[in-house]
Amino acid sequence: MNRKQKNSTGARRARRTVPPIDAEGRQRVVIDAVRPIVDGGRFAIKRVEGERVVVEADIFADGHDELAALLLYRRGEHGSWVEVPMEPWVDDVWRAEFQVTGIGDYYYTIQAWVDRFKSWRQGLSKKLAAEQDVAVDLLIGAELVGLAAKRANGNDRKVLERFAATLREKSKDSSQLALADELAKLMSSYPDRSRVAIYDQELRVSVEREKARFSAWYEMFPRSCAARAGAHGSFKDCIDRLPYVASMGFDVLYLPPIHPIGHAYRKGKNNALTANPDDVGSPWAIGSAEGGHKAIHPQLGTLADFKLLIQKAAAHGLEIALDIAFQCTPDHPYAKEHPEWFRKRPDGTIQYAENPPKKYQDIYPIDFESDDWKTLWQELKSVLTFWCEQGVRIFRVDNPHTKAFPFWEWVIGEIKKDYPDALFLAEAFTRPKVMYRLAKIGFSQSYTYFAWRNTQWELTEYLKELTQTEVREFFRPNLWPNTPDILTEYLQFGGRPAFMARLVLAATLGASYGIYGPAFELCENVAREPGSEEYLNSDKYEIKQWDLERADSLKEFIGRVNRIRRENPALHGDRGLRFHHVDNPELICFSKYTEDLTNVIVVVVNLDPHHIQSGWVELPMEDLGLDPHQPFQVHDLLTDARYLWHDSKSYVELNPQAVPAHIFRLRRRVRREQDFDYFL
Amino acid sequence: MNRKQKNSTGARRARRTVPPIDAEGRQRVVIDAVRPIVDGGRFAIKRVEGERVVVEADIFADGHDELAALLLYRRGEHGSWVEVPMEPWVDDVWRAEFQVTGIGDYYYTIQAWVDRFKSWRQGLSKKLAAEQDVAVDLLIGAELVGLAAKRANGNDRKVLERFAATLREKSKDSSQLALADELAKLMSSYPDRSRVAIYDQELRVSVEREKARFSAWYEMFPRSCAARAGAHGSFKDCIDRLPYVASMGFDVLYLPPIHPIGHAYRKGKNNALTANPDDVGSPWAIGSAEGGHKAIHPQLGTLADFKLLIQKAAAHGLEIALDIAFQCTPDHPYAKEHPEWFRKRPDGTIQYAENPPKKYQDIYPIDFESDDWKTLWQELKSVLTFWCEQGVRIFRVDNPHTKAFPFWEWVIGEIKKDYPDALFLAEAFTRPKVMYRLAKIGFSQSYTYFAWRNTQWELTEYLKELTQTEVREFFRPNLWPNTPDILTEYLQFGGRPAFMARLVLAATLGASYGIYGPAFELCENVAREPGSEEYLNSDKYEIKQWDLERADSLKEFIGRVNRIRRENPALHGDRGLRFHHVDNPELICFSKYTEDLTNVIVVVVNLDPHHIQSGWVELPMEDLGLDPHQPFQVHDLLTDARYLWHDSKSYVELNPQAVPAHIFRLRRRVRREQDFDYFL
Repeated sequence: MNRKQKNSTGARRARRTVPPIDAEGRQRVVIDAVRPIVDGGRFAIKRVEGERVVVEADIFADGHDELAALLLYRRGEHGSWVEVPMEPWVDDVWRAEFQVTGIGDYYYTIQAWVDRFKSWRQGLSKKLAAEQDVAVDLLIGAELVGLAAKRANGNDRKVLERFAATLREKSKDSSQLALADELAKLMSSYPDRSRVAIYDQELRVSVEREKARFSAWYEMFPRSCAARAGAHGSFKDCIDRLPYVASMGFDVLYLPPIHPIGHAYRKGKNNALTANPDDVGSPWAIGSAEGGHKAIHPQLGTLADFKLLIQKAAAHGLEIALDIAFQCTPDHPYAKEHPEWFRKRPDGTIQYAENPPKKYQDIYPIDFESDDWKTLWQELKSVLTFWCEQGVRIFRVDNPHTKAFPFWEWVIGEIKKDYPDALFLAEAFTRPKVMYRLAKIGFSQSYTYFAWRNTQWELTEYLKELTQTEVREFFRPNLWPNTPDILTEYLQFGGRPAFMARLVLAATLGASYGIYGPAFELCENVAREPGSEEYLNSDKYEIKQWDLERADSLKEFIGRVNRIRRENPALHGDRGLRFHHVDNPELICFSKYTEDLTNVIVVVVNLDPHHIQSGWVELPMEDLGLDPHQPFQVHDLLTDARYLWHDSKSYVELNPQAVPAHIFRLRRRVRREQDFDYFL
Repeated sequence: MNRKQKNSTGARRARRTVPPIDAEGRQRVVIDAVRPIVDGGRFAIKRVEGERVVVEADIFADGHDELAALLLYRRGEHGSWVEVPMEPWVDDVWRAEFQVTGIGDYYYTIQAWVDRFKSWRQGLSKKLAAEQDVAVDLLIGAELVGLAAKRANGNDRKVLERFAATLREKSKDSSQLALADELAKLMSSYPDRSRVAIYDQELRVSVEREKARFSAWYEMFPRSCAARAGAHGSFKDCIDRLPYVASMGFDVLYLPPIHPIGHAYRKGKNNALTANPDDVGSPWAIGSAEGGHKAIHPQLGTLADFKLLIQKAAAHGLEIALDIAFQCTPDHPYAKEHPEWFRKRPDGTIQYAENPPKKYQDIYPIDFESDDWKTLWQELKSVLTFWCEQGVRIFRVDNPHTKAFPFWEWVIGEIKKDYPDALFLAEAFTRPKVMYRLAKIGFSQSYTYFAWRNTQWELTEYLKELTQTEVREFFRPNLWPNTPDILTEYLQFGGRPAFMARLVLAATLGASYGIYGPAFELCENVAREPGSEEYLNSDKYEIKQWDLERADSLKEFIGRVNRIRRENPALHGDRGLRFHHVDNPELICFSKYTEDLTNVIVVVVNLDPHHIQSGWVELPMEDLGLDPHQPFQVHDLLTDARYLWHDSKSYVELNPQAVPAHIFRLRRRVRREQDFDYFL
């Protein structure tokens, strides 16, 4: 089985474990296991502006000396270092934190050293307490203070010299002065760092704008926005649709590809292999004689129309997100101009996409192993740059996991150099490690398995993995109950209550979430065939006409949920998510809270869309900032009902035919006769 | 709080996340999370000769192509690489293993690439199954095979060329041949590695001899070995004592320091601050006018005597371990010849050891921050070299955690260059991270908290941490129920049953364990004072006379336990340790097994030394290689009793006044009327 290979692997030799004797051997302090860290420092951790970075490390030395440690951080590769003293916590773990106040890269590292003065001071105080002779100790202190004086300037130096002189006197005064806080403080300003240990990496924080963490997405096909039945919708129709979308409280309006659609092998309605002449094709079949990734499908309008849409959307608090699908139809200009970017077959044709035995002859995948990959990368980058220049800052990237990872890492970095506010959502529904890798190499947000996590256990385990493990340092989930490709069985068979439950789950479990509309708010739930998750008559392949005013539309419910999200900072992030025990597996209960506990949201959802379910939920009162001996009020922000709860265990009952969820805000104090306050 | 620091931290910048465009962008495969690994590759993993290294890594690429991956390993920094194909397991984890057959360093790393031929072959077979036209596919295959032929030589080349020609024919034969195993095998021998991804480190395995993993230690003070009451024992007396130690089945005989003992501030009996003229002092107070760390205490004998002891011990299967305590008395020659290796006080004296308000004026700690540290390191190394030259290969290092970590890392590496079979036991009873660090920097074995882990829960949690987490990659526990410094309350108040229970626990939970004797086998359990863990009248400070023939001595019991250890390979390692459920917290049940399950040992211990305890133990029968539908026999190797067990749950009852433990060997099959076999 084994073969011999004589030549070098090319791999770097593991760092030598035995330091050569001529290296510095007196750095006694160890700085290890610095965290947060992603893959040993290979990738950045993620934050949004204003967030904190709490840094911990194992810091220790031989023996019993006192140590000092600093967290150092800076903004950008050339910023000045800011030092924050670290404090020992438990078990040799030290801790400090800093805040990232702007977009871009921050760096952090750690320094630590044996603090001889602190060690001396502690020993002295114990000796004094034991009434031992400390004459020699005072002289030792005088030496240490004298050396610090030489490192100091101006008045500090004078003060330190005076302290040193007093210590040298070895009087009773000297002993008292030796322990003075003023001296300790001054000494910590002029430490002896000659044997400082330096953590061997500067770890990176990639800081993005707040929308990277907190966003509500609405996906809509522009061509299905026409007011007139059967007409091809345009950007102008989209503009007319803006008030509708805005009324539901979304802040990102995501459009499937807006480029010319190919004609060769165009798919018909319901993904039929052959199209009728009037079939409009899939927007993801990009490119025709009319242009490629920088062009606009003529029936949607002009570039000017598109820019107007961006502008009008902004006025409604909506940011346009574009779909980036790096693949081409056989009609795409690249196929003619750059056949070297595709894989050629021995018969001279270009290799179309296939997943044998399935063939996708309408799609040419780009060959990221092309010999001309550098030009290819530059061209693809120019596509993103082009749309940035038009004002787009959010890209939903289609199937990034079928393009080379090094390309994404490079192109996201490049775009962010010029447009640091650009955001990227990875639409990768694939194996966990591949999804995580995409997040690590730079995607701001990621689609998730949420659509297929329906039970209490599934949701709890999955969301815990995303929000309570190191995954949260690099992966920002964006929860979608549906997409044009995903109509889950839960939605197919759960009726309107299922849509309501999944909306509340997505919008409260996830600081970022999205729906594909109007299919979602209209509870569209007919699949193409039994066992399929595809929509029947999906507007992926045809123009749809939606009756937005249907009485059973969820638009108002969605509007309420999005308003609750906006008004409650607890729902703006995912780190504060905790699950709570319920004694009925058909119910799920979780909370989200701000760090200061001023805003605590408790959500209970009935996961059974068919039956009334009830049970006892159990809240960790003290963790939620509640006095365990006092009753408290829970205020259902969905129905405005208020309940008085007495205990960590409380009864809930949810009827899916009414509202299948509570979104409670906790109100801490209950008015009593002796204090006529309102609830806080 | 924050201060600015303009200059560089000196830290290495985090690896750039954005690869420059002129770097190779076509390495599509990711190799990540390679394990086992210690601290990101900073330290070696540990093995003993003959053991396997099972290597796993996350390996994946974009898209759906098939991959190939190799584990590469070599012996030594300049050995030839041996390649082992890796196999995909679950969730993008790939796996392969190799065996380390000799002492010294091994290195391993990984390579992986997109395997176009495998991808093509899989696609082709699906297309053929779907009866699609594969003419072009066969041409693609012909190209791939043709290219491989160019990489091959001799007959392989010819065969590949013939395959390519047949594929080019596009006949029915071509299709069948395309899927031939012969072709697949040949193709995997000549892969296209032009875009191979190479893991960026060569990870190190430190391989030691088997005793690093499996050893039974006996600690004994030579001066307490004299046959005549009150006489100072010598190496010659030790030689007379060898049959006794060997009869108990130990294989390491560890002696406290054998060097001249200082006179200045010598401690009296029971650590009294002032010694009487006839007090012998502590062996750890090293150095007098008669010499230092390379000298022998005159009353013990000569260097020749010592070498004879080594030789005679070896004949009894015992290896001598020496104590290395790098500290000096004020009388030590170093104090005069190298005052620069100690910390000087302003009054001109040398700083003695202190832990305020306690003073240890008989000890000068070495100053590892000395300006002359390089000479100091060389001298300390020469101490180890000196004893290696005399034939010593095992060192029990006293308080290594009070000496600088870089020194140990260097000196252990240096000694192993010349004496690769040298072993080091770290006697560090300190915080967990410090203990683990010492193991990482090279100590072969480590003392543990075992002495203070007495309940079922404590033992289970602690041993799981040591044997079932990544700790096992670098930390080899050596379990001691007692030492000259540690007489636990459990032993003080549990009587003889407590000694028996702790012996069985140490000897079976730990592949390496040790006792301080004869105090242990004679169940010496009187502490110096209430609340103390020090022995009263310890032979740390005086010469002891032990009655080895006392009827209540545990020597025979210990002998039996050590024989069981030797005869059962399951007890030679710690990786096969698993704990099993018992419904009585006063009992503990665990098993150890060899990988092939040919040797399975199940241990049950009554942790209550005062009362009979009983309960039901629950064994995972299939994990232990048992047929869950068949009865099986358990054979108690301590008492030779045999029991027939019927089920995963079995009743046990242990009387501490008899034997407080079972050490069962599982016998798989029970003789039935139809097969007159004996138990396997």
